[in-house]
Amino acid sequence: MIKVAIIGASGYTGSESIKILLNHSKAKLTYLTALPEECGAVEEIFPQFKGRCPLEIEPLDIKKLAEKADVALCCLPHKVSMGFVPILLDAGLKVVDFSADYRIRDVAAYEKYYVKHTDTKNLKHAAFGLPELFRDEIKNARLVANPGCYPTGASLAIAPLLKKGLVETDMIIVSSVTGASGAGKNPSDKFHFPNMNENLFAYGIGTHRHMPEIEQIMSEVSGQHTTVLFQPHVGPFDRGIISTVYCKPKEKLDTKQLDKLYCDFYADEPFVQVCKNAPGVKDVAGTNYCHVFPAYAKDMYVCFSAIDNLVKGASGQAIQNMNIIFGLDETLGLK
Amino acid sequence: MIKVAIIGASGYTGSESIKILLNHSKAKLTYLTALPEECGAVEEIFPQFKGRCPLEIEPLDIKKLAEKADVALCCLPHKVSMGFVPILLDAGLKVVDFSADYRIRDVAAYEKYYVKHTDTKNLKHAAFGLPELFRDEIKNARLVANPGCYPTGASLAIAPLLKKGLVETDMIIVSSVTGASGAGKNPSDKFHFPNMNENLFAYGIGTHRHMPEIEQIMSEVSGQHTTVLFQPHVGPFDRGIISTVYCKPKEKLDTKQLDKLYCDFYADEPFVQVCKNAPGVKDVAGTNYCHVFPAYAKDMYVCFSAIDNLVKGASGQAIQNMNIIFGLDETLGLK
Amino acid sequence: MIKVAIIGASGYTGSESIKILLNHSKAKLTYLTALPEECGAVEEIFPQFKGRCPLEIEPLDIKKLAEKADVALCCLPHKVSMGFVPILLDAGLKVVDFSADYRIRDVAAYEKYYVKHTDTKNLKHAAFGLPELFRDEIKNARLVANPGCYPTGASLAIAPLLKKGLVETDMIIVSSVTGASGAGKNPSDKFHFPNMNENLFAYGIGTHRHMPEIEQIMSEVSGQHTTVLFQPHVGPFDRGIISTVYCKPKEKLDTKQLDKLYCDFYADEPFVQVCKNAPGVKDVAGTNYCHVFPAYAKDMYVCFSAIDNLVKGASGQAIQNMNIIFGLDETLGLK
Amino acid sequence: MIKVAIIGASGYTGSESIKILLNHSKAKLTYLTALPEECGAVEEIFPQFKGRCPLEIEPLDIKKLAEKADVALCCLPHKVSMGFVPILLDAGLKVVDFSADYRIRDVAAYEKYYVKHTDTKNLKHAAFGLPELFRDEIKNARLVANPGCYPTGASLAIAPLLKKGLVETDMIIVSSVTGASGAGKNPSDKFHFPNMNENLFAYGIGTHRHMPEIEQIMSEVSGQHTTVLFQPHVGPFDRGIISTVYCKPKEKLDTKQLDKLYCDFYADEPFVQVCKNAPGVKDVAGTNYCHVFPAYAKDMYVCFSAIDNLVKGASGQAIQNMNIIFGLDETLGLK
Repeated sequence: MIKVAIIGASGYTGSESIKILLNHSKAKLTYLTALPEECGAVEEIFPQFKGRCPLEIEPLDIKKLAEKADVALCCLPHKVSMGFVPILLDAGLKVVDFSADYRIRDVAAYEKYYVKHTDTKNLKHAAFGLPELFRDEIKNARLVANPGCYPTGASLAIAPLLKKGLVETDMIIVSSVTGASGAGKNPSDKFHFPNMNENLFAYGIGTHRHMPEIEQIMSEVSGQHTTVLFQPHVGPFDRGIISTVYCKPKEKLDTKQLDKLYCDFYADEPFVQVCKNAPGVKDVAGTNYCHVFPAYAKDMYVCFSAIDNLVKGASGQAIQNMNIIFGLDETLGLK
Repeated sequence: MIKVAIIGASGYTGSESIKILLNHSKAKLTYLTALPEECGAVEEIFPQFKGRCPLEIEPLDIKKLAEKADVALCCLPHKVSMGFVPILLDAGLKVVDFSADYRIRDVAAYEKYYVKHTDTKNLKHAAFGLPELFRDEIKNARLVANPGCYPTGASLAIAPLLKKGLVETDMIIVSSVTGASGAGKNPSDKFHFPNMNENLFAYGIGTHRHMPEIEQIMSEVSGQHTTVLFQPHVGPFDRGIISTVYCKPKEKLDTKQLDKLYCDFYADEPFVQVCKNAPGVKDVAGTNYCHVFPAYAKDMYVCFSAIDNLVKGASGQAIQNMNIIFGLDETLGLK
Repeated sequence: MIKVAIIGASGYTGSESIKILLNHSKAKLTYLTALPEECGAVEEIFPQFKGRCPLEIEPLDIKKLAEKADVALCCLPHKVSMGFVPILLDAGLKVVDFSADYRIRDVAAYEKYYVKHTDTKNLKHAAFGLPELFRDEIKNARLVANPGCYPTGASLAIAPLLKKGLVETDMIIVSSVTGASGAGKNPSDKFHFPNMNENLFAYGIGTHRHMPEIEQIMSEVSGQHTTVLFQPHVGPFDRGIISTVYCKPKEKLDTKQLDKLYCDFYADEPFVQVCKNAPGVKDVAGTNYCHVFPAYAKDMYVCFSAIDNLVKGASGQAIQNMNIIFGLDETLGLK
Repeated sequence: MIKVAIIGASGYTGSESIKILLNHSKAKLTYLTALPEECGAVEEIFPQFKGRCPLEIEPLDIKKLAEKADVALCCLPHKVSMGFVPILLDAGLKVVDFSADYRIRDVAAYEKYYVKHTDTKNLKHAAFGLPELFRDEIKNARLVANPGCYPTGASLAIAPLLKKGLVETDMIIVSSVTGASGAGKNPSDKFHFPNMNENLFAYGIGTHRHMPEIEQIMSEVSGQHTTVLFQPHVGPFDRGIISTVYCKPKEKLDTKQLDKLYCDFYADEPFVQVCKNAPGVKDVAGTNYCHVFPAYAKDMYVCFSAIDNLVKGASGQAIQNMNIIFGLDETLGLK
C-alpha cells in the first residue's frame, strides 16, 4: 500500500485527489496539509466527504510527512510550490507537483510568464507528466510535473498529426472553453454566481501562461519549433474543457484516414477515446478520460478534445502519474 | 419630467433601477451616487449600459442632490439607510427606500432582527410600498418603504384568502426559493459559481429578517395577528422567487371558487396575473409582474407566486411606488 | 461474484446503475436489456462509458437472462414493470424493482394513483427497499420494491421524530425541489433547455404519485395513520432533491436534543449523515448519501434532507438493497 | 403608426419580436400567425406576456393580412419562407424575412447548403439586412433578408479590418459559442435539459449553413474573395453568441491603433460598442447591442464580438431593419 500525502489539500484539486484516492486499491491517504487557516476535519471542509473520510487537514510538518508518506501530491500554487518541492524531495518522498514550476524546461520562458525560478536544479530532472506522450520519462522520475489542464486537452487533440509531421507548425490555433472550477476556490467578481451564470467570455488574450507549455509539448512531439496561439474562454458550467484546435495540413487525410491515424496512435491508451463526433464536456465530466475527434474542413484540420479539467486536467492525471512511478497498473483508482 | 436620483447605484438594485428608468417616459435619471470606491462611468461599472447611459456615479453631495432631483431611490443597505433618509427628506426630496429600515412598524420587532432604530420619527410616517395592498397610504407619502422581495411574493400569493378571512392565522408556512442575485453583488464562498451552480439549499432557518415583515403584512391584511413560518432556499438561477404558501382553511373553496376569488381581488391590478397553473420564475423574469395560482390539496390551501426579485421584488416596485406618489400612471416604465 | 442484469438499461437509472456496478468488487454486470429501438453498444448509447464498458444492450431474452444473471435490477416504468417482474421471479432471479408497482401495499391506493394492479400475488411478498427503516424485511426478500426518490429523502428527514412519536401525524408538509434528471430521458417542452434553464416551478399539486408512498412509510414508522401534503418543485440543476419537511411537535426538542436524537437514530447507518446546517444538493450529488438536518423554528419542526435522486433516490439504493439480499457488505460499490 | 404582422409568431424569434414591438412607439402589432396547431391567445402560448398582450395568434389569411399590416416580419424556417414571401410582397407588404432564403446571392451556394431555390426573382432585389455594413441598400428595399445570428456577430467583429484591407483573406477562422436558444423551441435529445446542462460541444463541422453567408459578407466588405472556416459550438446558457475570429494580418496594428480603427469605423453606429476587453454574452443579453474587441496576439489578429442571438442576431435586427425601411429612427423600440 502506497502512502500518499496531499500538500495543499484544501482546494479543488485537493478534494478531487481525496475523492480518487478513497477508491484506490493500492494507495492510501495518510497525511493532508494546508495553510493553518484552512485546516480542520476533511468532512467539515468538504461536506461531500461526510462519513467517508476520517482524516484531518493539518499544517505541514515535514518530519511527520516523511514518516507518514511515500509520495506527495503537491497541490500548491505556482511559485509557492518550488519553495516546498526541494524539501519534499530531500525528505525522501517522490513528488507529483501540480504547479507550473517544473513544467517549463526553458527557464527564460518560465520567467517571462511566471517569476524568477528558484529551483532550477530539480527542474532539470523533472519529468513532464503527460503519460500518453512522455510515459517513458515518467517511469523513472522522482519528480513529475503534472501538466496544465489546457495543455493536456490541446496536446492530445493533435498529437497524432504532430507526431507524423502532417501539420504546419508555424501557426496552430487552440481555442478552448473551460468550466468555472478552473478559476479555483477563491470567490471573485467574475466568478460570483450572478456574474458567471449565463455568461461566457474570453480572457488571457495573448498572455495565458499555458501558451509556452503548449508550445513546449507540441514542439517536442513534432520535433520542430511549433508556434501556438492559445485563446481560452470560460463558460457557465462546473467542469471540463473543450479544446478546438485549428491547423494547416502539410498533407491531407480524409475522415477515414484521420480516424485510423488516431485509433492507431491511441490504441494502447487506457484513457484516450477516439470519437466519431465532436465530444461534449459532459461525456468526460468526473472521469480521467480524454475524448478526441479529428476532422478535416475547408482545407484545415479541426481537432477536438474534451477532458475534465479537475481529473485528467489535474488530480486524475496526477494519480495516473503516481501509479506509473510506483510501477502500478496505471488505471488504479481511475476507472 | 420627474428628476430621479439613485443613492447607492452600484449594486444590483441600482443597475436594475437604471435599466427601468432609461425607458420611463416621464422620469429622468439625473444623479447617481455610491461609495467613492465604487464610483465611475455607468457604462464602465455596468458594461450592459455601454452606449445607453452617459451618466457618472459620483460620491453623494447633498447639495447637488437637492438641486438635481425630485425623488431619491435609496438603495442603501439596512442600518445605513436610516442614516441618510432623514437627510434626503430634509433636503426636500421624496424617498423610496429599498432597505428594511422603514418597513417594520413595531420598533421592538425591527430591533430584534436588525439593530437599534435611529430614525423612529420618519418611520411613523413611512408608507409600506406594496401597492396592491396599501395603495392609498402610498399616494400621499413622502417616504415609501419598498417591501422586501420575499414579503412581496408571499403576501400576494395569499392576500385574497387572508382578506376574506378564509384561512387560519395561527400558522402559515411560506416556503420560498430565490435566485442567487438575491445575495447581492459581493462575492462570497456560498455564491462562488462552482459552489452555487448545480446546488440548492435552505438558509436563515427560523431567523430570516423577512419573517416579521411577512407577519406584519399578513396581520394587516387579515386584520388578525398572523403567525408565519418563513423558510427561504436559494437555487442556481439568476432571478426570481417562487413562494409556496401552505395554510389551513377556515372554509373550503374549490378550484373554481378560488380562481374567481383571486381574479376578482386582482381584477384592477396591472401587475398581478392569476394563472391556471403553478407559475415558473422564468415567466416573470425581467418583468414587474407577479403570477399567482391558488390551489386546494389535502385539506390545505397551497398558493403559489412568482416574481422577479430584482423587479417586482425591488426596483420595479420602487418605480411603481414612485409613479404613485407623483400621481403618474402606475405602470410607466414597467410594461 | 454476483451476476447482475439490468432490465431497461437505456435510461438514466440504467446508466447510473451501470456506473456503480463497474466499480463493485463482488458484483458483475452480465446482461443488459432495453426495447429493441434502444439497443446497441453501451459505449455508443452512453458516451461517458467509452472504453469502460464493453457490453451490449440487447432485447430481453428470458432464457438468456436466466442463464446469465442471479439478480435483475428492473428499471422499467410503472405498469410495465409488473408485467415483467413475475416472469423474472419465475425464472429464478432475485429482483430489485425500480417502479412503483410493488411499493404500495394498499392496492386501492395504488390503483387510485396508477392503474389496475395485475400482480397482487408478488406485491404481498415484496419488501420495501428503504434499508434505514426496513432493513430486516429486505434481508430475506426475493423481490424488493426500490423506493421513490422523493419518499426516500422525505422519510429520512423526519423518521427519528416519527419513530419517537414526537410529531403530530394529522398534517405533515413535505416541500421538495428536484433536479431535472427526475423527469427522465425523454425530451419534452418543459425540460427543453431554454425552458427549464433559469426556471423553477411547482407541479403535481395534490396529485403526485409519491404522496401515498410517503404516507405509507410515515404511517409505518410512526405506527399511526399519517397524513402528508407533498408538494414537489423542479429546478435548473441535474441531480438531487432537497426536501423541507414542516411538522407540528407533540413535544418540543431543542437543537441539541434534536441533534442527539438524529445522531443516535442514524448512528449505525453508513449512508445517512446528520449535519449541523441545512444540506445542499451539491454535497450529495453523485453519492448514495442522505444528509439530514433537523431544526425547530416558530413552534414547528423544520427538517431537511438532501439526496441524489439518481443514486440514493434510485440506482444506489437499489444496489444497496441488492447487497443486503445477497448478504454482502451493504456499502459495496457505493462508497 | 406602422402596422406590423408577424408570420410564424409561435417560436422564439416570434416572442422576442412581440416583446420588442410592445415597446415600440411608432409601430403596432396588428396580426400574428402560425400553423393552426400553434395558434391561440398570445398570453397562453407565452406566459411571460400575461396581461401585456391581448392578441391572438391565428392561421394565416392573406386577405386579412393585407388589410391589417404594412409590413410582415416573416419568422418562417428556411425553404418554407420562400413559399410565402412572394405572396406577402404581392399583397403589397414590405417584408423582413428571418430565414436564409434571401440571404445568399449565389444561387448555387444556397442550393448546396439548403435546397433548390424557388424564388430567385425576389432574391435579386432583396437587401442584406446588416445595417452597419449595408444600410444604404436596406433603405430602399421592399424585402430585407435578416442576417443569420452567427454571421452578424462574426462580421461585426472584423469588418473594420476587412474594409481597410488589413487582413489576409485566404483563411479567416471564426470560432463561436452560442446559447441553447439558438436551437429553437422544439425539444430534442441534445437540448433536453439533463443533456445540455453542464455541457458544451462543437457541431456542424465544416458543414454549417452560416459558412457561405459569412463568406459572402466578408467578401463584400473586403472586396476580395474571402475564405472562412466557421466552427460553431453550443453551451449551457440561454442567450448570446461569443465569436472569436482569428486572422492573419497583412499589416500589424497595435492595440491603440486597433482601438482607434474600430472606434472610428463604428463611431456613428448606435448598436455597436467597442470595448477595452473581451466582451461577455451577459453584457448584451436582452439587448440589440454588439460588443466588439479587437486584439493582436502572436502575430495574429484575434477579434471578439458578443451579441444576443435572439435580438441583434434575429428579432432586434429585424426591427432595426424595419425602422430603416420606413424611414424611422433606427433605434426605436431597441434602446
